[in-house]
Order: sequence, then structure tokens, then C-alpha cells
Amino acid sequence: MLTGRRHFPHKHLLGIEQLTAEDIWIILGVAEAMREVSLRSIKKVPTLRGKTVVNMFLEPSTRTRTSFEIAGKRLSADTFNVGGSSSSVVKGESLIDTVRNIQAMRPDVVVIRHGQCGAPHMVAKHIEAAVVNAGDGTHEHPTQALLDALTIKHVKGRIEGLNVSICGDIAHSRVARSNALLLRKLGARVKVFGPRTMIPRDCAAALDVEVAPSLAAALEDADVIMVLRIQKERQVEQLFPSEREYAQRFGLNPRTLELAPPDAIVMHPGPVNRGVELSPEVADGDRQVILGQVENGVAVRMAVLYLLAGATGEA
Amino acid sequence: MLTGRRHFPHKHLLGIEQLTAEDIWIILGVAEAMREVSLRSIKKVPTLRGKTVVNMFLEPSTRTRTSFEIAGKRLSADTFNVGGSSSSVVKGESLIDTVRNIQAMRPDVVVIRHGQCGAPHMVAKHIEAAVVNAGDGTHEHPTQALLDALTIKHVKGRIEGLNVSICGDIAHSRVARSNALLLRKLGARVKVFGPRTMIPRDCAAALDVEVAPSLAAALEDADVIMVLRIQKERQVEQLFPSEREYAQRFGLNPRTLELAPPDAIVMHPGPVNRGVELSPEVADGDRQVILGQVENGVAVRMAVLYLLAGATGEA
Amino acid sequence: MLTGRRHFPHKHLLGIEQLTAEDIWIILGVAEAMREVSLRSIKKVPTLRGKTVVNMFLEPSTRTRTSFEIAGKRLSADTFNVGGSSSSVVKGESLIDTVRNIQAMRPDVVVIRHGQCGAPHMVAKHIEAAVVNAGDGTHEHPTQALLDALTIKHVKGRIEGLNVSICGDIAHSRVARSNALLLRKLGARVKVFGPRTMIPRDCAAALDVEVAPSLAAALEDADVIMVLRIQKERQVEQLFPSEREYAQRFGLNPRTLELAPPDAIVMHPGPVNRGVELSPEVADGDRQVILGQVENGVAVRMAVLYLLAGATGEA
Repeated sequence: MLTGRRHFPHKHLLGIEQLTAEDIWIILGVAEAMREVSLRSIKKVPTLRGKTVVNMFLEPSTRTRTSFEIAGKRLSADTFNVGGSSSSVVKGESLIDTVRNIQAMRPDVVVIRHGQCGAPHMVAKHIEAAVVNAGDGTHEHPTQALLDALTIKHVKGRIEGLNVSICGDIAHSRVARSNALLLRKLGARVKVFGPRTMIPRDCAAALDVEVAPSLAAALEDADVIMVLRIQKERQVEQLFPSEREYAQRFGLNPRTLELAPPDAIVMHPGPVNRGVELSPEVADGDRQVILGQVENGVAVRMAVLYLLAGATGEA
Repeated sequence: MLTGRRHFPHKHLLGIEQLTAEDIWIILGVAEAMREVSLRSIKKVPTLRGKTVVNMFLEPSTRTRTSFEIAGKRLSADTFNVGGSSSSVVKGESLIDTVRNIQAMRPDVVVIRHGQCGAPHMVAKHIEAAVVNAGDGTHEHPTQALLDALTIKHVKGRIEGLNVSICGDIAHSRVARSNALLLRKLGARVKVFGPRTMIPRDCAAALDVEVAPSLAAALEDADVIMVLRIQKERQVEQLFPSEREYAQRFGLNPRTLELAPPDAIVMHPGPVNRGVELSPEVADGDRQVILGQVENGVAVRMAVLYLLAGATGEA
Repeated sequence: MLTGRRHFPHKHLLGIEQLTAEDIWIILGVAEAMREVSLRSIKKVPTLRGKTVVNMFLEPSTRTRTSFEIAGKRLSADTFNVGGSSSSVVKGESLIDTVRNIQAMRPDVVVIRHGQCGAPHMVAKHIEAAVVNAGDGTHEHPTQALLDALTIKHVKGRIEGLNVSICGDIAHSRVARSNALLLRKLGARVKVFGPRTMIPRDCAAALDVEVAPSLAAALEDADVIMVLRIQKERQVEQLFPSEREYAQRFGLNPRTLELAPPDAIVMHPGPVNRGVELSPEVADGDRQVILGQVENGVAVRMAVLYLLAGATGEA
């Protein structure tokens, strides 16, 4: 399938921030090749046989963890899940001690999800294995942005020059941040929109995006609408009044979707809060590409594991 | 071991209800061949290499999940466990969204246990993968009935014409329901017995079984006695007064076992409440075949995965 | 790598107590060969292909379970994790019933961690599979002692004649007990030291060790200092007054480490309570070999699985 290893000049995947447009295209190119493996009857290649991938998820996540686990096993790597309540974290061990211990078992890749921004970067300084950031606090979630890019490329044929609008809690979303960084690097225009309390003040400058003054302004020329998941725990912090009000003012439904061009597609990182940020009609409608995103997630993660694990082809 | 694929005309295994006697015999026949694999020194065949089996257990279960996991790995499938507290269910995702997401990762088989009757049937309507019902509420548990049938066939040499008595909480037991359906299809006679509050009124007609008026009547001509596990949470609902009273009036012990013919065997789906539905002497005695049931469970689940996963033999 | 199977005259590994010095050296010798596998680019050998290893951890433990899981997979065994909150234990099943059920699925090795002393020994009486004790209450933790011995051998070149001091809660530590037994069998001298409430009265006679009257006496001629982890729950039992006091009187820090010879090494079974039994400077210093212990843990567990699983080489 893949002859030789593409040149990928990074040891870790900590964020989109560190990547050039060329780096991103290399990952997306390998992911294209990987997509095909999951469509076969025999969904397995021996590429990473004898490699060890540790999935260290210290925040609950079935979907992303399963996606990485499937990606690893389809490449024939040995995969291990660490984390959750059964973790040594209950014994009060620090993160650094935990990863040093994991390093001593000589994994090739450590995939980490952690509630604190920068945790994977700190981990990367202390271990020899390649580190993949699978989401760190409100900071970055690079494989999500990569799978979103692969999906846009598939549906729209290109990324450069597209108008992408990201709607929701921009301030607290690692998905928004990684996507904005990636889309700007690949030449798309990015607008953000959401409740005023959820748009960072320095947003326009920091992310090089436009802040839309209204939902209509966000959607009017959008090729792609990325709707963020509402974190219900933010309600407690009173950043927005109620789910019903959020749905009316910021949610996408058949009526508000009329504000966008007819060929605009709807993306969502999942899991969807139906009736809040997306109405059921939109969440299940023919303009959303949500399951294509999930499918591309496995392909992108296969590509990332392949590029970082020092694949040696047929062993 | 197996040359070619038997003709099995179902995409899913949702219940015994949908199967003909012939379908059941095909599964039991393949299970016979699979039994032998677990007795080898090298307990592994490459039959399902590159196939993906997702075990989605949304009720706690070590035994059945482990049995499916072992079955999958002995056929060389890649197996994934989803569910429990670390599941996306904690984020409020609906079952349908969860399985659609799993489908997007392109599994070949999804094994599902769920507290609600009909959940696997609903799942089957929304995904392309084959669905195996591993227990849905009080409805069906088809692989349990199949492993019980394989065990009876082994010990008694036949199923047709046997007298099988099922004792316990018939109304709330998916094990009782699936077994009654299967045994009637294969030509056994079935009696049920239990506390009056635990025998559904329409039982005789709905399941085509006889309701025994007393333990003596249930046991007097039994070839096989299936004792159900008491769900202790039912006590709270006051369906029966106390464990001690249940043991005396409905439990099997050396004294009550005298009511049955000397060659009647005792089955139990496990885990046994010792001293409640089975006395320790009976639970460990020479007439019970409980561990044979567990052993046959792996073989039956290997057969089901093989028949549904579109096995292609040596890949 | 390994030609033929060494003669190892035990079916189970229940404790160091049952082993002769020769048995221990056989395990350590095989572990030497196994160390090399984890250093390869392709960290996998087909030695235990088709063998089934069940990790049954009924106390929380990420590190030891992951170490056994990695050991199993590097030998190509199929590994299964049972235990924690999702276990059948929640249904009130007894340990014996649980392991009988697991036995019926025909595993080759069952690795068990349990809060009660002697649990693995009881399990071994009821199943055909080989049993490995991965820690039973305050009793034994044989693979920990074996990995500690492999580490000492690597750093010091020998074990016989060395002075090893074990510091901490000797009374409640399975690590201390297994290490004392092993080190005496291989001809090392062992001193123990800790709070008076944590030194068993019959310690000197029962373990054939010397009880040091002071930290200075424990350290003055030590080649190896094993520092035990403080179980914080003991504080509640008032066996010692506070973490701060423990650190001052019994902890190892740059000042107290001066009491030991300059080439004495510091060991700890992990996870370290930094600032309690070890100061951060010592825990991260150049005299500790803690991560070497973890690394050797995988090798020792590979050796144990290999010797007990009836390896048949290239299948």
C-alpha cells in the first residue's frame, strides 16, 4: 500500500500550531491511503506489527479512544488502554511519574488526553516515545482538525479559498482552536460566531479569524459550517442562560440553515446535543457529514500512528 | 477446520424468535467444530483475521463479555470493548448516535447488551454491521439458549422429546424466554415453575409451555432442570418475601432434587446465588453441568461470530 | 531466541516462599533473554501464539496490570482483563465461582491480584490453568521481588553477599516480604527498618533478617536501599502521626542518604509519594534505579508467562 516512509519532520503531534501546510498535507495524503484499508474485507495491514501504542485517556472518552484503538489494531500494533478510574492516578501518582513508568515499558507511541492544557507537551519532554495529543483541556485536538480537513477535502474537493464558519463556545473549544489554526494554514477563510461570553477578546488577532456579528453574517457565504458541541457544565457558570435559549439564538435548525448557501455542509465533532446546538432535522439531514468525520477519524489516526511510530513496513 | 461457509440466512442474531429449527442446528453444528479449537494447545485459527468485533456492554457483565472477547480472539478477529462508566453515554449521547458512530468505524459485528428490551433490534435498523443480542432487558439472550442447547445435546444426546423444566422468575428472565422458544422449536417439552408473582399469566399460550402447579410436578419427569438466577433487586419489589423462604419453597437442594428422576441434570446460567436458588451441594454436585455451559458458551459465540462476520477462511 | 524450554519444576508462581535459589535463577536467566525483545524495533515474538492469559485484578492497579499485559502481547499471547467495578463481583459471585468460570474458558495462565492473603493459592487449587500471584494482601508479590533481583544483578553484578536494607512499613508490605525471602535465598544479607509499629515482632526470626535500631544503622553498610511506599490509609489507623514526621524520621533525602556508602543504590516499587518516603531530589537523583525496575518488570513477567504457559516455540 505504502512504499517507504514519507518524510515527516516531527517526532510528536502536539498540536496544529507546530505544523506547516506541507506537514498537514503529508498526513492527509497518508490518511487517504489508510481510508482504503478500512473498506477492505480484511481490514488489517502488518505495517506496525511489534509496535506498542499506549492510549492514555485521563478524561472519559469512548469515541476518540476507540478510534485510536481501531487505528492501531488495523496497523497490527499492540494497543494498551490506560486511564479512567482504575488508573494509578487514584494512588496519587503524578502525571510525570506515570508517563515515566509507561516509558520504561518501551512504547513506540503514547496517545494522551488530559484535562489540562499543555499536558501532552510536558509529557513529550519526559519520554522517548512519540506523543500524540488527543485533546488537552481547551487547548488543541489536532487529530480532530485533521479529520475535519480530510472530510472537507473529500466533500468540497479543496480547502484553500473556502469560507468556513465555526459556531459555538469558541473560547473553551480545543476543536475550534485546532480547526482555526489548520484552516488558516491551508488557506481557508474562517469566521467564528457564538454567545458574546464565549468569544475570546483577542480572538480575531490570535487565531487570524473574523468574528461574525450575527448568525446571519456567519452563515451567509459559508461553504462549511462547523457547529461545536455545547458543554453543559458551562451553564452552571452562567455563560449562557438555558438550552432552549441557546438553541433559538445560536443553534442550527432548518430555519437558520436557510441563512447559508444551499451547498454549505454541516460538521459537528460529536456527540451531538440534539435540540441544542443542532436540531434533529439538521443532525440527521442530508447536509451534515458527521459520520464521514468519524470514518475519516480512523484513517487520520492510522496515518498519524504510521508517521510517528517509525513504521518499517512488512516486518 | 471449516471448509466454506454454511448457509445461514440471517444477517443478525437478535433472538431465538426469528430462527427456525434448521438455523439453530446450523449454529450448533458450527459450534461443535469450534469446541475443538479451545481444546488445542494453540487455541487460535485465522478465520476472522482483519475482522472487527465491537463488544458494547451497557449493563455490567464480565462473564458474557469475556466469553465473546475470547471467542473473537480465538478466531483472530480484532475485538474492542465499549461501555461501562467510561462510555460516551456519560456525555448524554443517545444509543442510536453511539452506534452510528461505531458503524462509521466499520466494524463487522457489534455485540450488544442493553437494559432495554428491543435495543439490539433498534440498533440493527441503523447500522450495516451484523448485530448480536447479548441480552436485552427481560426479552431475549439467544447465545445463552444456544449454549444451553449445545450442553443438553452433549449430555443427553438429543433435544427432541426431552422434558425440560425451567424454575424461577419466569416473568423477568430473558434466559427463560430464549430457552423456552428454542426448546419448543427443537421439539422438547417445557414446563415452567416459580412463585406465582413471577409466572406471567399468558405464559402457557405465549411460550407454548406448561405451568407446573408445584415443584414436585415440575421435577417428576424432568430430563433437564434449568434453575434461574434470582435477581435480588426483585426482593425490594416484594415479589417474594425472603431468600430463606425462596430457598425452601423454590430452591433446589439434595432433598428437593429427589423429586426428579435420577438422571435429570441441573443447569444454571450463572452466577449462582449459593443457598438461594441452588444449595451448595447441588451447585457443586455431580448432576450439575454449569461449567460445561460456560465452556460451550465460547464455542457457540465463536460459531455465531463466524456465521455473521462474513468469514472468508484463510485470508 | 530461546531454544527449548528450561526445566522449571513449578506449575504456578504463588510466592517466593516455594522457590529454590535455582528456580529463581532460571526465571532471572530467561528474563535476561526477554529484556532483549523489548529493545528491538519489532517488539514481538511468536512464542505464546494461541495461548490465553487472563489478568484478573481485583484491586486497582494500572502499572502491574499493564506490565503483565505488555509481557503477554510481546509473546503473542491473547490477553484479557477481568476485574474492577465492571466485574461479576458486583453480582455477588464468589471468587471460586468466578475462577471456575474463567477456567471453563480454558485459559493457559491466570494472573491474579487480590486484597486477601492466600487468594491465589486458593484459586490454584480450583483451576487447571497456571496461576501467577500479582500481589495478595500483605502476603507476597513475587514478580516484584524477581524484577528487583534482576535490577540488582544488573547494577551490582551479583546478589550474594550484598547488604540490602528495606525501609518502611515492613509489617504490611508484600513487597518487603517477597524481597526478604528472595534475597535471603540468594545469599544477600537483609536489614529492615521502619516505625516501631510497622516492624512485626517475630520479623527477625520469621524472615531471617536483622532489625536495624536506627536509620543510620540501616544505611551504614548498605549496597542496596529498598524504600517502601507509604500506604496513606495506614495514617488513619494512627500507625504513624503525619507525612511530615514520617519524611523527617524515616524518609530518604539528600541528607539521610549521606548515611549510606556512596555507591549504595535506591530502589522503590512505585508509585513514589514524593516528599514522604523519598524526597524529590532522591526520587529523581542519579542513585535511584526506579525506572530500571519498571523496565525489568516486563522482562520478568515475560519470563514467568513463558515458563508457565507451556510455550511450544514457533507454532
